[in-house]
Amino acid sequence: MEYYSKQISTLIEELAHLPGIGQKTAARLAFHIIDSPMENVNRLADAIRDARANVCYCKKCLTITDSELCPICADEKRNHHVIMVVENPRDLAAYEKTQKYDGVYHVLHGVISPMLGIGPQDIRLKELMQRLQTEAVDEVIIATGSSLEGETTAMYISKLIKPAGIKVTRIASGVPVGGDLENIDEVTLLRALEGRVEL
Amino acid sequence: MEYYSKQISTLIEELAHLPGIGQKTAARLAFHIIDSPMENVNRLADAIRDARANVCYCKKCLTITDSELCPICADEKRNHHVIMVVENPRDLAAYEKTQKYDGVYHVLHGVISPMLGIGPQDIRLKELMQRLQTEAVDEVIIATGSSLEGETTAMYISKLIKPAGIKVTRIASGVPVGGDLENIDEVTLLRALEGRVEL
Repeated sequence: MEYYSKQISTLIEELAHLPGIGQKTAARLAFHIIDSPMENVNRLADAIRDARANVCYCKKCLTITDSELCPICADEKRNHHVIMVVENPRDLAAYEKTQKYDGVYHVLHGVISPMLGIGPQDIRLKELMQRLQTEAVDEVIIATGSSLEGETTAMYISKLIKPAGIKVTRIASGVPVGGDLENIDEVTLLRALEGRVEL
Repeated sequence: MEYYSKQISTLIEELAHLPGIGQKTAARLAFHIIDSPMENVNRLADAIRDARANVCYCKKCLTITDSELCPICADEKRNHHVIMVVENPRDLAAYEKTQKYDGVYHVLHGVISPMLGIGPQDIRLKELMQRLQTEAVDEVIIATGSSLEGETTAMYISKLIKPAGIKVTRIASGVPVGGDLENIDEVTLLRALEGRVEL
């Protein structure tokens, strides 16, 4: 990459370290940055540094935030007796966007994956068990993904919690709303059939 | 985006301003940045700021660089009597990657596009004409893209330069090497036929 000046090459290299950004996209982004007003560029650089420097985990649900408690855990209007267990903060955000869930969350920061050598001790499961002992929880909704790892994790958590007499539920698998049946894989179709509900 | 902390939301917003980066990709990048070591994050932020702060145009060919002359214009081993005219610094880099071109460049920073209201005065054409008057140039190779705008620009430049008695050439259009004929559009196939060479 010596066709560009040293600093532009450095920028392209740094951008190409980001996930899903190859050399060509990195070059495109770099040229966009170079063409932008200095003010915008400073804002981007500051946002990157600040977000990383001030990030911490919510003391309760372990989502990433910049204060001791995340806005959801700090909100007294939410139902703190229902905990939804999610894989990561992005999944939490996905459920928040529905604006229909008023319970709280617990973020595992991963899923159990024997293939990748990730065991139950590598995700934030111990913290969940501690919460169940200290907080009055009526229901734990397991909302890990429907991948093999997500299912394994859900089964594992459910077996761990059930003996404590707490209600454990799992989000439904099935046909996505608005999806054509013909484009959906067989496993999902079978799940949808197994999980059918009476009308 | 209030499901994340303020600073993470700000970062996602800033990243989403980059071209080709939507909200979801921006969130993915933001979480990657947050999970990266502080050292790497500082390097990225510095690279962004430095590249923008120190960028300037090469005094001769107008490509972006961080010194008065770009490495190519400053290289005495290159043939300064042949100038390749390209649309932007990325196209320059594409030709440099071939490692076979030993002339110099002139970067137009755009193409003539009547549709978008971009006329000959809006690209760095005046600077090219000035170079042709002060430098001893044997050949101008026009390497603008083969889009309608690229072709228009090539025609315009060629008409401008030819009266000065300088040889003007255009890079060949045709079938890309390794391409299947059946997947290539008719215009390209026609061009390839018109531009056929004797073996």
